[in-house]
Amino acid sequence: MNNEIDLSKHKIRTDLAIETLPSMENLDTYIKDEQIKVTSLHVDSKLSQEIGKKEGTYITIEFDDVTDYDNREKVGQTLEEEIKKMLDDKKITPQDECLIIGLGNEKSTPDALGPLTIKNVLVTRHLFLLGTNVKEGIRKVSALSPGVMGNTGIETIDLIKNIVQTIKPSFVIVIDALAASSIERVNKTIQMTDSGIEPGSGVGNSRKEISEQILGIPVIAIGVPTVVDSSTIVSDTINYLLKHLSYIKDNYSRNKLIVTRSNYLEKIKNSNLSKNEKEEVIGMLGTLSEEEQKKLIIEVLEAINYNMIVTPKEIDYLIEKLSDVISSALNNALHKEITNY
Amino acid sequence: MNNEIDLSKHKIRTDLAIETLPSMENLDTYIKDEQIKVTSLHVDSKLSQEIGKKEGTYITIEFDDVTDYDNREKVGQTLEEEIKKMLDDKKITPQDECLIIGLGNEKSTPDALGPLTIKNVLVTRHLFLLGTNVKEGIRKVSALSPGVMGNTGIETIDLIKNIVQTIKPSFVIVIDALAASSIERVNKTIQMTDSGIEPGSGVGNSRKEISEQILGIPVIAIGVPTVVDSSTIVSDTINYLLKHLSYIKDNYSRNKLIVTRSNYLEKIKNSNLSKNEKEEVIGMLGTLSEEEQKKLIIEVLEAINYNMIVTPKEIDYLIEKLSDVISSALNNALHKEITNY
Amino acid sequence: MNNEIDLSKHKIRTDLAIETLPSMENLDTYIKDEQIKVTSLHVDSKLSQEIGKKEGTYITIEFDDVTDYDNREKVGQTLEEEIKKMLDDKKITPQDECLIIGLGNEKSTPDALGPLTIKNVLVTRHLFLLGTNVKEGIRKVSALSPGVMGNTGIETIDLIKNIVQTIKPSFVIVIDALAASSIERVNKTIQMTDSGIEPGSGVGNSRKEISEQILGIPVIAIGVPTVVDSSTIVSDTINYLLKHLSYIKDNYSRNKLIVTRSNYLEKIKNSNLSKNEKEEVIGMLGTLSEEEQKKLIIEVLEAINYNMIVTPKEIDYLIEKLSDVISSALNNALHKEITNY
Amino acid sequence: MNNEIDLSKHKIRTDLAIETLPSMENLDTYIKDEQIKVTSLHVDSKLSQEIGKKEGTYITIEFDDVTDYDNREKVGQTLEEEIKKMLDDKKITPQDECLIIGLGNEKSTPDALGPLTIKNVLVTRHLFLLGTNVKEGIRKVSALSPGVMGNTGIETIDLIKNIVQTIKPSFVIVIDALAASSIERVNKTIQMTDSGIEPGSGVGNSRKEISEQILGIPVIAIGVPTVVDSSTIVSDTINYLLKHLSYIKDNYSRNKLIVTRSNYLEKIKNSNLSKNEKEEVIGMLGTLSEEEQKKLIIEVLEAINYNMIVTPKEIDYLIEKLSDVISSALNNALHKEITNY
Repeated sequence: MNNEIDLSKHKIRTDLAIETLPSMENLDTYIKDEQIKVTSLHVDSKLSQEIGKKEGTYITIEFDDVTDYDNREKVGQTLEEEIKKMLDDKKITPQDECLIIGLGNEKSTPDALGPLTIKNVLVTRHLFLLGTNVKEGIRKVSALSPGVMGNTGIETIDLIKNIVQTIKPSFVIVIDALAASSIERVNKTIQMTDSGIEPGSGVGNSRKEISEQILGIPVIAIGVPTVVDSSTIVSDTINYLLKHLSYIKDNYSRNKLIVTRSNYLEKIKNSNLSKNEKEEVIGMLGTLSEEEQKKLIIEVLEAINYNMIVTPKEIDYLIEKLSDVISSALNNALHKEITNY
Repeated sequence: MNNEIDLSKHKIRTDLAIETLPSMENLDTYIKDEQIKVTSLHVDSKLSQEIGKKEGTYITIEFDDVTDYDNREKVGQTLEEEIKKMLDDKKITPQDECLIIGLGNEKSTPDALGPLTIKNVLVTRHLFLLGTNVKEGIRKVSALSPGVMGNTGIETIDLIKNIVQTIKPSFVIVIDALAASSIERVNKTIQMTDSGIEPGSGVGNSRKEISEQILGIPVIAIGVPTVVDSSTIVSDTINYLLKHLSYIKDNYSRNKLIVTRSNYLEKIKNSNLSKNEKEEVIGMLGTLSEEEQKKLIIEVLEAINYNMIVTPKEIDYLIEKLSDVISSALNNALHKEITNY
Repeated sequence: MNNEIDLSKHKIRTDLAIETLPSMENLDTYIKDEQIKVTSLHVDSKLSQEIGKKEGTYITIEFDDVTDYDNREKVGQTLEEEIKKMLDDKKITPQDECLIIGLGNEKSTPDALGPLTIKNVLVTRHLFLLGTNVKEGIRKVSALSPGVMGNTGIETIDLIKNIVQTIKPSFVIVIDALAASSIERVNKTIQMTDSGIEPGSGVGNSRKEISEQILGIPVIAIGVPTVVDSSTIVSDTINYLLKHLSYIKDNYSRNKLIVTRSNYLEKIKNSNLSKNEKEEVIGMLGTLSEEEQKKLIIEVLEAINYNMIVTPKEIDYLIEKLSDVISSALNNALHKEITNY
Repeated sequence: MNNEIDLSKHKIRTDLAIETLPSMENLDTYIKDEQIKVTSLHVDSKLSQEIGKKEGTYITIEFDDVTDYDNREKVGQTLEEEIKKMLDDKKITPQDECLIIGLGNEKSTPDALGPLTIKNVLVTRHLFLLGTNVKEGIRKVSALSPGVMGNTGIETIDLIKNIVQTIKPSFVIVIDALAASSIERVNKTIQMTDSGIEPGSGVGNSRKEISEQILGIPVIAIGVPTVVDSSTIVSDTINYLLKHLSYIKDNYSRNKLIVTRSNYLEKIKNSNLSKNEKEEVIGMLGTLSEEEQKKLIIEVLEAINYNMIVTPKEIDYLIEKLSDVISSALNNALHKEITNY
């Protein structure tokens, strides 16, 4: 039956380029630290077609945790280095003026990453305007949180285009909260790219993108996935359910559900079920590929119009720490004369 | 297989008493308005055992929407009347002093209902303390948001017990964000009860409850479900998936997935599948009762330790409007001399 | 000596046109209510030269108090009526699109009036954009708080000019916190004018003004004085000091300073001192006119670079109530189909 | 005339012990850095009577500026060292549990120092409660902002007493915004004392104090003056006015007011006027001592009931940086295992 269902129109929602790759092979990855992995992905026009992400370089920093002070510092230093490398790659000099834009809704915790980051970036443009004697090594930087259309009534990209025309910066850095397709990456990944950003992407309205093509100057987007799509949690659960049920079937003669929490996840991860086993346990669902299954779930969720956010319980704390990491890294990478750590 | 799995330990998470009832029959319900339904439920000791909710009266106000100004006003008036009735039932007089407590985390949008409500309640106790000439009809009211343990390091109930001992109010009103087990009720239900409240309930630690037994004075809890448990969204989706797949099978010879959004939900709601059909489509899962299915999902989610919040995308706006409704209703019900609408 | 000091360059800082008038005669004033006085002042080119305020109509609403609910409601209704009248005068129809701008710094309490008001105005422009079916009588409204240059690095007027060019509204309403030259008016006056506004006015940089001349569409500015200049408090104190000392001299043989607080202010207000008495008590200072005295104080304060705000202690509460009054009046005046009271 | 006026009841409002001293001689002062001066003052029972400050040790850290990152870091390190010394002096060990209290009103910018600091202190008590494996070197710390009576209706000290009884910490650290009597010290001084604190001090209600006597455990108060009393700005201005007028008289034959801003303050600071000169310029006012003059100003301000705050224009920025400095210093001084810089 599955080959007759047309699921191709359903896009799995993720803002992380890395999650759209069919394979992680041939990626330029280095392990900076036991806890930090940096992956560099170049999307050319061919790959762009395949994975539905725009052409450009995508730097992905993956880490375990930012609740620990030491980790946070290391993640921040890594991000700082990567920002500096990207500025070099884009031939941006210390004299070039920067506009930082914090996208998102300050009043909705998982969407507040941009506005919170803006609060702690060092803004200096007005000092130059006012003729203040600014220390050497300090770049001309302005910063703005344009809000969200639901609160302003104005399309964000329209606001940004005009600000860029008004203050004529040499380049733009955009900060935004993203969506991931896997829960493990939420709040544990920073993506930086020169390909631009589409606020509320996935909607597929390219008119709304903030990018070098649209603005005429380099645009560096820095984002952290802070939510997963509803379909992710459903799909993940069904997959683990499948493995869980099979595991029970195989390991317990009494067929009782006795879960020993420690390492359980590790154990069932390795349960590979045959197609027959899958079909027995979750019927027709088991005959679909993982991608087909997920698209089917999206189909259902969209049909029943469930417009939900899925985010970790401690999101308020994580957002605060992540915005600290990004604002510090930005301050250190953009200006020569300050050290924030 | 299902009768061999021991799922009884898994509680479906809901703070709404009405959602735990096996049947809605015999409930004292009245329709105040086309859009507003008020249900009064008395939980006696027998029912308390059955549904796992504490003894007491539960008033449930269900409504369509608070984004519309007119609706909001009607919901507020209904709540005001119900608060007044409950004050009468508990023999609370206009001279009795009230302490209002806003539970929850102001920095996490769906958990901010309590603190936001506190910001708009009329506080008067200090005017009496300072000997100000207070208008007749104004009650002595104090209000506090004790924060959450993750931010203060202190158990909320310990703080509250001591505040009650210090200022010795005649009764306490507690405002909190709740969890529902069905998405349809999120932000569309207000529950008021005299049975007390357990912050972070479902954990089953009765030492932590805020109730008349613990505090020795009447405790009226007013809550709105602002989140659903992760298991709800998974379980709802699987149910609709089941109906969806069956519907397709029955209605489309080509077996293509062509969903006409309008009224789709209504259509598939009525698709009742036979046990065989269910088993065919989702295998062993289909043989479980809805409750068993849900518990199994909780089992899996807990095993893989997914600690997520599921909440509507426009939660920031809804929380603000709901806290306005509650604070206005409280101000009008507690004091004779003000009208807030 | 005084006639030799050149004080003409020192401007007494006030944003209220009414405070710059040499006399209150010939003003069109009506008493709406015992507590509310509305004054309409037309500044023509001649008067503009004299008082240093731009040409246009200035509506001044003076009231006692907004801490009382009833008063607040009356002030709100008065403002609503005056806004409607001004819209009519400016030939603005219900079809005309409005952009509301909240000037000021949200993080500095006395400067937060604009941003706080914006939070509660009804924004609808995006509903029209998205093709939502909007009720008749609802106007197209967008709203924005552009922040302050110290936080964004961008001149506010530059941001506003571009937003106006982008979204092309028919008229603009600007909300801002003002400075008064008399403490009695702080938080007790609303000024509305069609003459535009200069953020951080008094600085005298007309390039920065937000006005019909600059934007090409009607600009209605609504402001409330929330601070007084440091010079005001010094000058007021010296004046009362003068009266106080004279009063003591006249009334107490023992020359002891025994102040009976009740009605004291009333009593000494009427103490009119002769020039000789003044000179005896405060020397050369006493020989200056009130205006000269004030300018001298400004001279000194500027020389010693005291860059201070003077504001009432309960400013946080007052700002909140005042922003409620303004946002409600705006919502009611701009849209036909809502009633906010 | 001045010796007949009874001004003794008027207290010059300052929370800084150092400002109440008749002389700065015999103080234990060291210059930590060109920009940072640390003064240690021990108030014994005799001095306590004289200056009206409670017995105890007062550490005063004076600095130029916290808007500069480097300065901020140095001030933070100095405060950290002084906190550690005071903990040692009070025989507080790393095992002793700490409760940190942030006094003040979060919504009023100059009063928000306490609540803002609390937001960034590391809270750990709940981790011990929950049996989490806490790293060695981490102290048990809880933290709370009790709000202000105007918002809660509850006296702050009542709340604090009960929290102390409930959670039984070994010592308390209180953070509060203070008032200074000289503008030069505002936002440029940190005072730490073991003598306790009176929220809204100067009112002279000792029942309200938070101190070791009241709570039975050591209380360390850390404060920064963020406002000056209205009387300060009036009195300062009159003094400079006096010098200014004399300076003009002496230096300009034309008697014109030509102020060259640069170094003007320095120049007139050294203008010492004879009593006769003073009397000529500001009359009877000139015959009063500086203290008498100030008390007379307070007399007048109180009589006319001016209840104003005087604070620098950029207070929002300064409060943020100062709370960062204090929270970092606290985190580093209280826990061994973290470094915040």
